[in-house]
Amino acid sequence: MESLETIGKKAKEASRYAAKLSTNDKNAAICACADALDAECSYLLAENKKDMDMLSPEKSALKDRLLLNNERVLKFTNGMRDVAAQDDPVGETLYMKTRPSGLQVGERRVPLGVVAIIYEARPEVTADAFALCLKSGNSLILRGGSEAIHSNIATVSIIQKTLSKMGHPPELAQILTDTSRETAVKLMKLNKYVDVLFPRGGGGLIQTVVENANMPVIETGVGNCHIYVDDAADFKSAVKVVVNAKISRPSVCNACETVLVHQSIAGEFIPMVGEELHNKKVEIRGDETVCRLFPKAVPATEEDWHKEFLDMIIAIKVVDGMDEAMEHIEFYGTHHSDAIITENYSNALRFVNEVDSAAVYVNASTRFTDGGEFGLGAEVGISTQKLHARGPMGLKALTCTKFVVFGNGNIR
Amino acid sequence: MESLETIGKKAKEASRYAAKLSTNDKNAAICACADALDAECSYLLAENKKDMDMLSPEKSALKDRLLLNNERVLKFTNGMRDVAAQDDPVGETLYMKTRPSGLQVGERRVPLGVVAIIYEARPEVTADAFALCLKSGNSLILRGGSEAIHSNIATVSIIQKTLSKMGHPPELAQILTDTSRETAVKLMKLNKYVDVLFPRGGGGLIQTVVENANMPVIETGVGNCHIYVDDAADFKSAVKVVVNAKISRPSVCNACETVLVHQSIAGEFIPMVGEELHNKKVEIRGDETVCRLFPKAVPATEEDWHKEFLDMIIAIKVVDGMDEAMEHIEFYGTHHSDAIITENYSNALRFVNEVDSAAVYVNASTRFTDGGEFGLGAEVGISTQKLHARGPMGLKALTCTKFVVFGNGNIR
Repeated sequence: MESLETIGKKAKEASRYAAKLSTNDKNAAICACADALDAECSYLLAENKKDMDMLSPEKSALKDRLLLNNERVLKFTNGMRDVAAQDDPVGETLYMKTRPSGLQVGERRVPLGVVAIIYEARPEVTADAFALCLKSGNSLILRGGSEAIHSNIATVSIIQKTLSKMGHPPELAQILTDTSRETAVKLMKLNKYVDVLFPRGGGGLIQTVVENANMPVIETGVGNCHIYVDDAADFKSAVKVVVNAKISRPSVCNACETVLVHQSIAGEFIPMVGEELHNKKVEIRGDETVCRLFPKAVPATEEDWHKEFLDMIIAIKVVDGMDEAMEHIEFYGTHHSDAIITENYSNALRFVNEVDSAAVYVNASTRFTDGGEFGLGAEVGISTQKLHARGPMGLKALTCTKFVVFGNGNIR
Repeated sequence: MESLETIGKKAKEASRYAAKLSTNDKNAAICACADALDAECSYLLAENKKDMDMLSPEKSALKDRLLLNNERVLKFTNGMRDVAAQDDPVGETLYMKTRPSGLQVGERRVPLGVVAIIYEARPEVTADAFALCLKSGNSLILRGGSEAIHSNIATVSIIQKTLSKMGHPPELAQILTDTSRETAVKLMKLNKYVDVLFPRGGGGLIQTVVENANMPVIETGVGNCHIYVDDAADFKSAVKVVVNAKISRPSVCNACETVLVHQSIAGEFIPMVGEELHNKKVEIRGDETVCRLFPKAVPATEEDWHKEFLDMIIAIKVVDGMDEAMEHIEFYGTHHSDAIITENYSNALRFVNEVDSAAVYVNASTRFTDGGEFGLGAEVGISTQKLHARGPMGLKALTCTKFVVFGNGNIR
């Protein structure tokens, strides 16, 4: 592998090239790369098989994430084509005003420059990230997990070959072929060239990046999401939303992990929601009251309130009221997505105003926190931090602005 | 001093209080604090004198920055009142759309939470930062330089006393009374409580913060600003702008440090601008051609092209044309503010499109890069990074957004 210094330098040069590309040229390049990935699908699958063969057989969850097949490749190449079809965020002038000095001052949306993404064993991220970064006028440095290294290198090599054929610099997308931890940490220190770093993966990866990176980082993903069932909730709706938020896709960050139930409705609601979850094979971990009201629940530990189960497990707790519910969310939550189920106007508004999360819901499943559902198109992740981007991040999160000033010899 | 853990915890609680305050209450608190600072001006000046007395007499530049007097106190208390008069950014709903799922999804502007500011010997920042943070619904932890510690503690104690009297938590503004480096580094690690850290000061401070902080940081301030005088420039206008950008206030970050001159006009333009700068007592450091064309110039070293002089010194270099000028700006610049002087339409547009700086100018002095001049009101600094905020940062830079979702029992 080339040195990180060289990779960084080339990425910076490529980013200046990307920033100048027209929307038509970017779309054509993204679609050509998608076509090439489809055309070379059998090569991609053969390389993917090398990754699969290296895995020990008991790692079934990881195997499922790693596996590529015709259908999955077509899914991500179509995802690339969707990105090409989205509006180009680059070049938009947000406003232009004439100031008292006579200067015309405006803000224009421009690319970030060089984007780096450190991710785990999800080979579809490779193509997806490339499409999003090129569309937003950035160059990309990828560092994927060692488990998917053959799949990732194959994907990037097809993309690079296609870019070269079209006369574009292949360094618009680069991947680190050395997947050692030392090299990853070096990448985290490359702020001379890298403008922003996105870690995409579990809590451990994100923590390592936050501790080591010297460039701006956007934290993504960890979601300990709550649903608070208020005493003024419609019970039927509450059960439906809780069950959906837990079981529709338990392994994702916007799945519900903890339900908080107002004490005055606990006697009636807990058995109702408990039965429904239990029938759907969800393990319930409850506080004392919950275990008493629904004996199939097992006692929750302190740790459970902190946990992103990402599994068919849910924690349920009875609270005194809204204040305790919001305190619980503040203390144990990850500020991702939290919901209240209520028919009470003031409680709904209070929850929305006071809960400090990327997405706050009234009477809806937390599962909607998603770029597509929110109308942002494909997403580069879901930010749980407050700076730059919060919640689902679409193409705009891959841009920044600059002030453009037109004068006429003005001095101050 | 209380432990940083305690300070952080109290700041977080205060931030939740601040987020709920009405605009009227925030404005009243800011104005009451300004009034109290005016009323207790003599105490403030006495404390300031303690700081001044600790300084060795030869540090005149530092002395000037540290000194408070009646006029300066009135200036910053009026600055606080100006912040109170600005629009409140908090609570604005940027849009609210009904999605195909039937959900209503919108983005709303909310406070960041706990803001920390590490700054050097500028006592006026203390009051200024408090007003900006409270107006944007945040609580504030300050760590000022040891040289201004008496002035800073006095300012914060007056603010805290006033807040308490009004029934607000005094922890809306806290200051670290221990100015050791160790404590500052501990503050940089307090991401459990601090949502964003702004270093305000020189390059050394900013570097230390970037290397040590584990929370998001907004880099501010370092400005190696350029003016490129194109072959199609109006010479009279070019001289006027260059002189203004250098001498109107040489010690600030938007002052011009390097002038790049197109070779085909160098013979005529260099002596013209050289004479004017020399008459205004500016030292000129030039490349070979500049020194030949204007013998009062001294030879520039490689280091000079990198330097933010912040002084009556300017570097001048002759370039082949736009490409070399833009390469120079990319390589030596700090992406703060850069200008082209030209009457050529295509060159003006190309410079604006391709120069990757927070503010890009055509035919105007770089000195306009300022929250007030750009129409943002009082500023919390000038960001030279790309994430979250770029260029002058007003109240909006102290906020983020959250997604607000209204449903009707929607599931996915």
